[in-house]
Formats: sequence, C-alpha cells, structure tokens
Amino acid sequence: MTPQSTLIPAVSQRLNRFVQGQHSQAMELGSETELLLDAAAHAVEGGKRLRARFCATGWSAVVEGNGGPARELPSSLVDVAASLEIFHAAALVHDDIIDNSDTRRGRPAAHRALQETHGERGWVGDADQFGRSAAVLLGDLLLAWSDDLLEDGLDDVPVARAVRRQYAQMRRDVTIGQYLDVAEEAAHVTAPDDEHPERAIRIATFKSARYSVEQPLLIGASLAGASETQRDALSRFGLPVGLAFQLRDDVLGVFGDSVETGKPSGDDLREGKRTLLIAYTRQALPTGPRRAVDELLGDPSLDAGQIEALQNTIRSSGALNRVEADIARYAHEADRALSGAALGNTAVGELRDLARAAVTRTA
Amino acid sequence: MTPQSTLIPAVSQRLNRFVQGQHSQAMELGSETELLLDAAAHAVEGGKRLRARFCATGWSAVVEGNGGPARELPSSLVDVAASLEIFHAAALVHDDIIDNSDTRRGRPAAHRALQETHGERGWVGDADQFGRSAAVLLGDLLLAWSDDLLEDGLDDVPVARAVRRQYAQMRRDVTIGQYLDVAEEAAHVTAPDDEHPERAIRIATFKSARYSVEQPLLIGASLAGASETQRDALSRFGLPVGLAFQLRDDVLGVFGDSVETGKPSGDDLREGKRTLLIAYTRQALPTGPRRAVDELLGDPSLDAGQIEALQNTIRSSGALNRVEADIARYAHEADRALSGAALGNTAVGELRDLARAAVTRTA
Repeated sequence: MTPQSTLIPAVSQRLNRFVQGQHSQAMELGSETELLLDAAAHAVEGGKRLRARFCATGWSAVVEGNGGPARELPSSLVDVAASLEIFHAAALVHDDIIDNSDTRRGRPAAHRALQETHGERGWVGDADQFGRSAAVLLGDLLLAWSDDLLEDGLDDVPVARAVRRQYAQMRRDVTIGQYLDVAEEAAHVTAPDDEHPERAIRIATFKSARYSVEQPLLIGASLAGASETQRDALSRFGLPVGLAFQLRDDVLGVFGDSVETGKPSGDDLREGKRTLLIAYTRQALPTGPRRAVDELLGDPSLDAGQIEALQNTIRSSGALNRVEADIARYAHEADRALSGAALGNTAVGELRDLARAAVTRTA
Repeated sequence: MTPQSTLIPAVSQRLNRFVQGQHSQAMELGSETELLLDAAAHAVEGGKRLRARFCATGWSAVVEGNGGPARELPSSLVDVAASLEIFHAAALVHDDIIDNSDTRRGRPAAHRALQETHGERGWVGDADQFGRSAAVLLGDLLLAWSDDLLEDGLDDVPVARAVRRQYAQMRRDVTIGQYLDVAEEAAHVTAPDDEHPERAIRIATFKSARYSVEQPLLIGASLAGASETQRDALSRFGLPVGLAFQLRDDVLGVFGDSVETGKPSGDDLREGKRTLLIAYTRQALPTGPRRAVDELLGDPSLDAGQIEALQNTIRSSGALNRVEADIARYAHEADRALSGAALGNTAVGELRDLARAAVTRTA
C-alpha cells in the first residue's frame, strides 16, 4: 500500500474530526449557529481532493528523493493537506457568490442552500440577500478554520516558517488571481484583442495553475524540507500541469457534460468568462461574427440553442483545437521537468498519474 | 511619554510598510492588480484603532504588573496590534457588503468605490455586481494579510502558540457572531418577544464585546505571558466594556449625528438591526404600535420623517433610558474588575481612559 492510497481517508477523517470539534465549540454560542456549522460541514465534503493529493505527493517526492521511507504519512502532513481542502472550500463558497452560480458538485451552491432554508423556516426579509450574506460569512469562517488546521499541523514542526511562507504566497496569489479574473470580465474591452490570450494565461496562472498544483506541491515539499533544486523541479512540473488543468477546465466550462461536471452545460458562456478559448475564438473571427460572440457572452439568460451556436463557433474557429494543442504541450513540458530530478521514483510515478488525471478529466 | 502614545504612529507606520511591500509583490502579477491594492491600502487607513489600543494596553498591563518596564513597545506587539487592524478592515469590507452600506467613515464603502471605478473606466457588465465581487475578494485578501502580519509578529516568540490560540478564538467568535446578527434580522419572528433582549445581548457579546475589547486585551496579554489571574481580570473588565461599547454603538446607530458618525442618521433602523434598544422598545409597546414599528424596521427607503417618528417612539417607550442605564451598569462593573488585579497601575489608568472613551463616544 502506497502512502497516497491512505491519504484521502486520512484527510476526510481529519476534516470530520476538526469540523465536529468546531461544531461543539460553536454550540456554546447558541443553537442558532447550527445552520452555519452544517453549511460549513457540507462545504468541506466531497470534491477531488486534488490539492491535498498534490501536497502529499510533493511531500513524498522529497522524502523518498532524500532516501527516506515515505511509508507513512505524518499527522502534520495530513493536517496541512486537510487545511488546503478547507481553504479551497472557502474559495468555492465565495466564488459561487461572485459567479452567481446556482450549483456546485451537482448540489445547490452554499448561498442558494442558505437562501432556501430562509424560505423553509418562514424567516422574514429578502431570502436571496440572506443567502449571500450568510455565505460571505461562511467563507470567512472556513478561511479562519483553514488557518487553524494549518497551525495544528505546524505545531512543533521545525520547518514551520517555510511552510507558512509558501501557504501565505498561495493565499495571496489565488485571491489576486480571482480578482484579475473578475476584473477581466469587465475590463477586457479596454485591452487590445491581441493581448487577450496573454492576459487569459496570466489569470489562469495565478488563480489556478499556481494555486491548484504548484503551490500545494511546494507546501508539501517545504514540509519535507525540500532543497532548492527539488523545489525547482516541482515548480517546473507543477506550473504547466496547472495550466493544462485550467485549460481543461475552460474546455469543460463550454463543452462539458452537465451530468459529469455537476454544473449547467455552457456555464462559462453565461458567466462571460474571458478564457484562452474565448481569446483564440475572437482572434480567429472577422469583425461581424466576433461582435455577435461578444453580444452573447456573459448573458445569463442564454438558451440551449444559443449555447450550441456558441459551441459551434468556438469549435469551427479552430480555437478548441488550439487549446487542446496547448494542453498537450503543457503536459509534455511537465513530463520533461521530472526527468532526472532528485525526487523519489514512486512519487514521480504518482505525480505523472495525478497530472494525467488532471488534464484528461471530464468533470 | 507612555508607550501608548507611541502606539498609533507605530501601528500606522507598520501598516504602511506592510501594504507597500504587498503592493510591490502584487505588481509582479500585473498592473491590473493596482485597483485592488489601492482599495486595500484605503481600507486599512483611519479608524479609531481601538483593537490595537486594547491589545497594547493588555500587553503593558501584564508587563508592568509583573514589575517589568513597559517603556518601549516591542516590534512583535506592534505587528500583532497592526494585524488586528487589518483583520478589522477585512471584517468591515465584508460587513458593508452584507449590510448594503453605502458609506464607511464618511467615504464610499469599498464595494461602492469599486463600483464607481467600473463606471469611470468604461468597463462592461454590471458595475454593482463587479463592486460586490471585487469587495468579497478584497476582504479575503485583507484576511490573508492579517494572518501574514500576525505571523511576522510571532516569529521567534516563545508564547506564539498561546497568542495564536487567542487570535483564532477571536476570528471564530466574530464571524459566528456576525452570522447570528444577520440571521436574527430574518429569524427573530420565530422567537418569543420576551427572549429578544437576551438574544440581542448574546449577539453583541460575540460580534462585538469579545471581538473588539476582551480578545484584543487577551491577545496583548498572551504576548506578555499573562497568568490565569491576570487574564481573568482583563476578561472581567473587557467583556462589560465591550458590551457597553456595543450598546453605545446601537444608540448611535439610531440617534447618532451623521456628521460625527460618518454614516446616515438612523442607519440601523433602515437595516432592521435587532438590537437591545429595539427589543426593549418592542417589549414596552402595546400590540398596535409594536406592529407599526415592525413594519417600518428594515425598510431601506425610510425617509427623514419616518426615522424621526421611530426615534421618538424608541425614546418615549423608555427603551433609550433602559439602554443608557445598562451602559452605566456595565461601565461600573468593568471598573470594579480592575480593583486589586495584578496589573500595572499606569496601564490600569489607561484601560479606564479607553473604557470611558469607548462608552461615551459620539462617533
């Protein structure tokens, strides 16, 4: 049994234990806290645990690479990996408010679920506003929890400072990256069309590639006391994997099957996300059709026929093929970064598996 | 010169230096980050620095009480005090979204300022939604920063763990307290009228009394290595001061002068805040007038005449006098808690001054 196979159950157990502890503490503030605490428990359930996986594999790649036996995952690693998952749950709760998303993983988004409870309980005032307000605070609570769990993990760990620094960098990068993403939906009109691809890649780098792959790897690696060379190899692997991961996400956001993704088909088109796929499409189109695309993008009321028309335009413009070629190129680049690195062989195999799963996924 | 008089300039300097450092780092992510970083710099400016003051005075009360010379504020204390101010800035940014507040400290609230920029720059899409989305992320960034600055302060501090634990408690209490406040605006109809005062006090305890006074004191005290007896005395002082502080806030939210408070007069009435003042008013009124109050409360379009009518009702019901009597009682209770405590004399004098300022303020 590799340590990786024990990770997901260990992280889930740790999350359950942590959330239960928080639940008991919160009950001292009154039974009215229950709804918030239940929403928090709900928010940390499920998901692919991608960030926990990359974190744990970053850790074992270094431990193994240094000749150590990465047979058992230390509790500090499980805490830190679980903390990344709570942080991600917080980011998703706020992200769904920002994107006005109704669903997440096939279930109502947190703010919608809170809104529904407002109605069911016969509360007064604007249910929609209550849902959003409570979800802002839910995200804040999860952010606080992620830090508490991180510190649980770093208690008495000699390399705590290095891990904290990496974690802080991750938090800033993703928050600013998310802001750039939101701003681009509004500000893209002020940038020349030929700069759009570069801008889309920069946003994908911070909000996703670094956040979802490179930094979890480096956080795990820091906990294992990685050398500069080891960190560098993991970065050169993680960044292109993360970009390929985000480009795959962009493709799924337009062409994904709603049954598999748990989100309505063509969701990114209704939201008006300015992805590389859109930048390539717009580059390929003459003025008239480009304007037609611009008018549809970001309209939350697009119907199935309009979504299909946009999908056809994106496909026939060649943009989908270009993005698929980019994904393949990034995946290849990532693969090469691992050759000859001072990282453990078993872990390198696992990194390749994780990369493949992240890049070829359908959900 | 007491150490306290050097605190505010030291905290402001530290905040400026920190924000400038973050600004330079963020520029590497692209010049489009400037708007967010400027909004962050703006959010940490000004304010009464109440939490920093209580934190520093909690620290010197213990240092002096243990016979030490609290002549100079250590840089760790300045970092931690500044971190509390960044945390508070984050809470205010999110709070203003939740309360739909247009102004803060006499200037546009963060989400409104961001919304205005959207318009000025000729960006596309919904300016209001952009303002709120960007402000959710602005609050998240400030939350991350508050933790970074806390950790700067705790680097190499032997009592770091105790300080972190206290800080974590503060974050959870205020976030859950804020949620209870939001939920009460919607859920109060499901609770019997005679429970409303107790519920209002419980919310005030967590969202404000602990957060704004007791926990800053205990965070400072932990940093000074306080004994249980010292912590206990500071708690017995801080909690009633904090409650009096919040009740004063409730009174100002209904009767305050908009020129002094920087908020529209009667703002709490338009928001429908379920304060102790309202609970007492409703208790005192017969059914008919009570229903009339319920119908007006929480209506964002209340005009000056309606606000004045509500103010008169609250005053003539005796609720204002009851709340003023509670404030006086809490202030007295706080005063007694300091008698005979193992805390430094100079600091105790400063605590009394701070308490007086918090309770008698007009803004």
